[in-house]
Amino acid sequence: MGNVSDIDGLPGLAEVREAAERLRGVAAYTPLVEFQILNERVGGRVLLKMESLQRTGSFKFRGAYNRITRLTVEEKARGIIAFSSGNHAQGVAAAALLAGTPALILMPDSAPTIKVEGTRAYGAEVRFYEYSMTWAREALAHQLAAERGATIVPPYDHPDIIAGQGTVALELLDQARALNASIDVMIAPCSGGGLMAGCAIVMSRQSPGAKLYTVEPLGFEDTARSLVLGKRVANEPGACSVCDSLLISPPGKLTFAINYPLLAGGLVVTDEEVADAMAFAFHRLKLVLEPGGATGLAAVLCGKVDTSCKTVALVCSGGNVDAATFCSVLSRSITN
Amino acid sequence: MGNVSDIDGLPGLAEVREAAERLRGVAAYTPLVEFQILNERVGGRVLLKMESLQRTGSFKFRGAYNRITRLTVEEKARGIIAFSSGNHAQGVAAAALLAGTPALILMPDSAPTIKVEGTRAYGAEVRFYEYSMTWAREALAHQLAAERGATIVPPYDHPDIIAGQGTVALELLDQARALNASIDVMIAPCSGGGLMAGCAIVMSRQSPGAKLYTVEPLGFEDTARSLVLGKRVANEPGACSVCDSLLISPPGKLTFAINYPLLAGGLVVTDEEVADAMAFAFHRLKLVLEPGGATGLAAVLCGKVDTSCKTVALVCSGGNVDAATFCSVLSRSITN
Repeated sequence: MGNVSDIDGLPGLAEVREAAERLRGVAAYTPLVEFQILNERVGGRVLLKMESLQRTGSFKFRGAYNRITRLTVEEKARGIIAFSSGNHAQGVAAAALLAGTPALILMPDSAPTIKVEGTRAYGAEVRFYEYSMTWAREALAHQLAAERGATIVPPYDHPDIIAGQGTVALELLDQARALNASIDVMIAPCSGGGLMAGCAIVMSRQSPGAKLYTVEPLGFEDTARSLVLGKRVANEPGACSVCDSLLISPPGKLTFAINYPLLAGGLVVTDEEVADAMAFAFHRLKLVLEPGGATGLAAVLCGKVDTSCKTVALVCSGGNVDAATFCSVLSRSITN
Repeated sequence: MGNVSDIDGLPGLAEVREAAERLRGVAAYTPLVEFQILNERVGGRVLLKMESLQRTGSFKFRGAYNRITRLTVEEKARGIIAFSSGNHAQGVAAAALLAGTPALILMPDSAPTIKVEGTRAYGAEVRFYEYSMTWAREALAHQLAAERGATIVPPYDHPDIIAGQGTVALELLDQARALNASIDVMIAPCSGGGLMAGCAIVMSRQSPGAKLYTVEPLGFEDTARSLVLGKRVANEPGACSVCDSLLISPPGKLTFAINYPLLAGGLVVTDEEVADAMAFAFHRLKLVLEPGGATGLAAVLCGKVDTSCKTVALVCSGGNVDAATFCSVLSRSITN
């Protein structure tokens, strides 16, 4: 396993610890849970870091709050802009509300209703763009930011965002120690790579024996392919997936610079496998996971990584799923 | 608040602590979780003890395991019998499987499919009785027990069962201390009263300032009425409720002997309020609660108890709900 401490501009363990201080008492210290029924099923020990129970229903609040609270008074007064399919949108909106800064969020017109409503409930202004124009959203955000003098809060490729997401792993390792568990494998869902990058910074220092894997939906496995190729590559056009929170490509510059030397590889799951995992989480674990948040569980349930006699930590990254989508998944599993 | 330590035959704090030792590493040490969105909604601090994440999906495993592991080798060889609408059934079946003793479970023909399948999955034999014959189920169990030489594991009215359920409160208080929280109010769902009785034993000694309330569905508030009247009274016939796990009446002899002097009262919630709470748990908290397990949340969301500036501990007692029931609740909340 490599070391990224000497790369300029990238956050390190110190920045993640500073983020943890900022988030103390603001972000939820989410539980690390274990289920005998899941352990027996996979023949190992699976620890689930429940970021679906995080403020705003996903880990994204951590990075957004860590970024926004570091803005100057003048920057906060001019407001912030973000672009997101929904979880970063809600994280930013909630953090902006706490920081007293106005927020404009650009969301795809395909975003789940629960995410749009959640974003508005935190007082943010929402503007939609066509999902097919996702490639142009960053330019649109920059144009609006210039007009308003606002600051962009990017979804993953910023040191403060990465450091904030890394607090997931700081907590996870403290909680694992309390269970006398040593992590053999850690799996985190991946879109731009901010969650995994933040966690990799922590894991590589504090649990260097752990193998780290991203998990992505089939057709959107740009990080898995980039890790193999050693360079950032984009997804092929035309794919679709139920995992609305994991569709961004290519990997971020900063996140990939961190992830490439530290990760063991990238796992890939199909929409069917994700739906089965969501149904398993409902029926057996009594947990609500959104599709993207269930990808890690799908990976272990489907044997995408060796779990035999291993201790595997999964980040269940979010639970923001519309009731209609959730119930269609459950009805499907009942008939199968 | 009274004291029950001098009543013969009732378990005390020592018995709950012994149960905790037996359950260590076998039962899940379930998380105590807190949500900013819920705190803001009720104007206080709400701590949820997540027994829906317990082995078998409800707290019932605790008491069942504590009872069954205390049987002699001869008793275990002859097997056990239990009668239950479903959560005790699964708890007993799982505990019997661990103890290596055959289990026969009598269940009402109205039991949710997920509970029947769960019970069978743990290797128990299931026999159904007509729901309208619930009054006769105990006599049937005794007859079968006599024929087989089997031991009955009652659902609530036994010192070992009560002591096992009390471990919920032992954990809850340890977890609350770690959060610097002092409990003002504790609410637990109530059918026969075993969960509340076990918790009351612990709370009255370790958190004597806390007011303790049961919560029951409307039409099945026998404990609330019994607490007012000072004697055990049954429910009026003819009522119905979605809370399948909370329909037993009257309160147990032992459980009421413990609960009467220690409780502040009994709260009552309607099926509508329970459905709204289940939907809130899905949409805002990302938790799967069964109707009975959502009654405490319903009580605080509907202001059945003063939560203003209070710290309120809720036992979310179970999450065993069929997908069809769950989705009908969610679709209802969407249209409302």
